[in-house]
Amino acid sequence: MAKEEEKGECGGWKEKGHENGVCTADASAKPITGDENPQPPGWFAEYSPLWPGQAHFLKIERVLFEGKSQYQHMIVLESTAYGKVFVLDGALQLTEKDECAYQEMITHLPLCSIPNPQKVLLIGGGDGGILREISRHSSVVHIDICEMDMMLIDVYREFFPEVAIGYDDPRVRLHIMDGSEFLKSAQVGTYDAIIVDAFDPIRPEHEIFGSPFFETVAKALREGGVMCIQAESLWFPSLNLPKLIHTFRNIFKGSVSYAWTPVPAYPSGVIGFLLCSTEGPHVDFTRPANPLDHHDAGSSFGVAKEPPKFYNAEMHSASFCLPSFARDCV
Amino acid sequence: MAKEEEKGECGGWKEKGHENGVCTADASAKPITGDENPQPPGWFAEYSPLWPGQAHFLKIERVLFEGKSQYQHMIVLESTAYGKVFVLDGALQLTEKDECAYQEMITHLPLCSIPNPQKVLLIGGGDGGILREISRHSSVVHIDICEMDMMLIDVYREFFPEVAIGYDDPRVRLHIMDGSEFLKSAQVGTYDAIIVDAFDPIRPEHEIFGSPFFETVAKALREGGVMCIQAESLWFPSLNLPKLIHTFRNIFKGSVSYAWTPVPAYPSGVIGFLLCSTEGPHVDFTRPANPLDHHDAGSSFGVAKEPPKFYNAEMHSASFCLPSFARDCV
Repeated sequence: MAKEEEKGECGGWKEKGHENGVCTADASAKPITGDENPQPPGWFAEYSPLWPGQAHFLKIERVLFEGKSQYQHMIVLESTAYGKVFVLDGALQLTEKDECAYQEMITHLPLCSIPNPQKVLLIGGGDGGILREISRHSSVVHIDICEMDMMLIDVYREFFPEVAIGYDDPRVRLHIMDGSEFLKSAQVGTYDAIIVDAFDPIRPEHEIFGSPFFETVAKALREGGVMCIQAESLWFPSLNLPKLIHTFRNIFKGSVSYAWTPVPAYPSGVIGFLLCSTEGPHVDFTRPANPLDHHDAGSSFGVAKEPPKFYNAEMHSASFCLPSFARDCV
Repeated sequence: MAKEEEKGECGGWKEKGHENGVCTADASAKPITGDENPQPPGWFAEYSPLWPGQAHFLKIERVLFEGKSQYQHMIVLESTAYGKVFVLDGALQLTEKDECAYQEMITHLPLCSIPNPQKVLLIGGGDGGILREISRHSSVVHIDICEMDMMLIDVYREFFPEVAIGYDDPRVRLHIMDGSEFLKSAQVGTYDAIIVDAFDPIRPEHEIFGSPFFETVAKALREGGVMCIQAESLWFPSLNLPKLIHTFRNIFKGSVSYAWTPVPAYPSGVIGFLLCSTEGPHVDFTRPANPLDHHDAGSSFGVAKEPPKFYNAEMHSASFCLPSFARDCV
C-alpha cells in the first residue's frame, strides 16, 4: 500500500505504474459543503431524522392534492416510479407501488399468529389499507378503528380507493377519536388483536413510553392476545433492539418478537415490526398458526378485489429471521 | 366521495365540512417540471437506469480519492450515514456500513449450499470482500480471482483495508485479466463454485446473453457445482424473473433459485441473487448443506478479523422466500 509520503498528485497511483490514473482529490481534501436537506424542484425528498445524511428522492409528475386539516398537512403526488404517493406533514406515508408490503405484513403477522381472531382494534391506519387486509379474515366478527382525522380518510377515499376500500367492510366500526382515549374506556380483555399504526417511529425514549398507552393496549387484549406496531428499520443506528424488546416484554408479559420486511419507499428500504402477546396461551409469532394461504387468500372473502400481493406463509416466517448483527443482540 | 363538479377551491373538502381544509392543488394541476437527475452540491445521488424517477442520496463529508484507470472512473467518498463509499463510473459499489450484507450473501449462499467446496472462482469482485468471505471456509483449497483493473484493487487496499483483506489469504491466485478470457482456457469441471460479481445488472436482454459467457461458466463447474450472480431487485419493473430463470435453467441444466436480501445503499434497498447448479448431485439452495454457523463462523479461520455480521443459516433460507407477486410467477 502506498505510504503517506509517497503520495504525489495522484495519491501514489502514478508512482505505482498506473499511467492512466488521474487524481483530483485525496484524503487531505477539505470537508465539502452543501445544503443540509436539498429539495430539487420536481422531486419529493424525504429526510429521516432517524438516519441523517441520506434521503430517498422521488420524481414528481403532478401534485394531485394539497390540503391541511385541523391536525396535519397532506399532499397527494403522482410520482414517476411509485404511482400515487401520500405525504403527511412532509413524511411519506404510502405509495401505490409498495403499500401492499407494509399493509399486508403489519396485519397478517399478528392475525395469522393466533387461531381464530374475532375482535380486532386498529389504532390509526386511517388510509384503510389495514382494514382491507383484516377484511380477508373470515373469522373476524368485529373491527374497531380509531382515527382522529376525518379529512385524511376522505382524501384517501378519493385518491386511493383501492386502499380505502377497507372501510366498505360491514364489520368495521369507525371511531373518529384519539386511540388513547378510546382505550381508556375499552373493556378489559376485549380484543384478540390490536394493530397500532399511529405514530412513527417507535423508540424507547419516545414520549409514548412515559404514558400508560401500551399498558392500556395490553389490558384491552384477551389472554394470549397480540399487538403489532411498526418499529423502525434494523439499519437505523438509533434502533436499540434489546432495550425495545425488554421494555415491551415487561409491559405485555407474553412473547415478544421482531420482524422486518422490505418496503422500498421507506427510509433504508425496510421497515420493522414489533409483535407482543399477553400472558396466556403461548404465541409463537414465527410460525403462522392461522395461515392465510390455506383458506381465504385468493377467495372472494372480504372487500379486497385482489388476493394479497406480498404476504404468504413463507414470507411470514422469513420476516423473523434477522441478520447476525441484530439476531445476536436479542 | 366528492364529485368533480363539487370541487371548489379545496377539492370539495370545505363543502364537506372540513373548515380547516386549505387546498393549493387538485387533479387538474399541470405537470410539474424539474431537473431530470438533480445533483445537489454536497450530496452523491445515484440514479438507477433500471428504475427511473427515483434516487438514493448520500450526504458527503469529503472526497477522499478521485481517479481514472484505463478502464473506469473511481471515487472514494466519506459519507455521513454510510462511512466510506466507493463509486465506479457514477454507480455506488459498496459502503462501509452495509457491504457485509452483499458480500456475505453472494458468497455464502452458494458455498453453504454444497458440502465441502474446495475450488472457487471469483469473476470480478476486485474489492476483495468476497475473497474475505470465501476465506472463512476451511474446506476451500484454491481461490482464483479474475479482475481486470489493478488500480481498482490498489484503491480498495488503501481506502477499504477491511474489505481488501481478502487478498491476504494465501489460497488466493489473482489473475489480472478478463474473466471471459480466463474461462476460455479453464479446464472443464474444475470448480465447485463460481461467483460472478462483474457486471451490473443481469437481464436476459443484456449483451452477455448473446455471448457464450454463461456456457463457459457452466462448463468450468464440476457436476453439481454452483454459480451465484447478483440479479437486480425484485422491485424493479424491468426484472422478468420467469424469463431469467428459464434462460439459466437451459444453460446450467440443474436447479435454479432466486434469493433477495436488504442492502440499504442499493437502489430500492434490496439486491437479488440468481443461483444455478449444473447437472449432477441435486443442489437445494434453500437449505444450507454446509452451514457456516456450525464450524467456521466466529472461529479464527480465514483472514477476516470479525465473524460474519449479516449471514447466518436462518437468513440463508429466508432469502429464498419471495413475496407472492414474485413467488407466483416462478
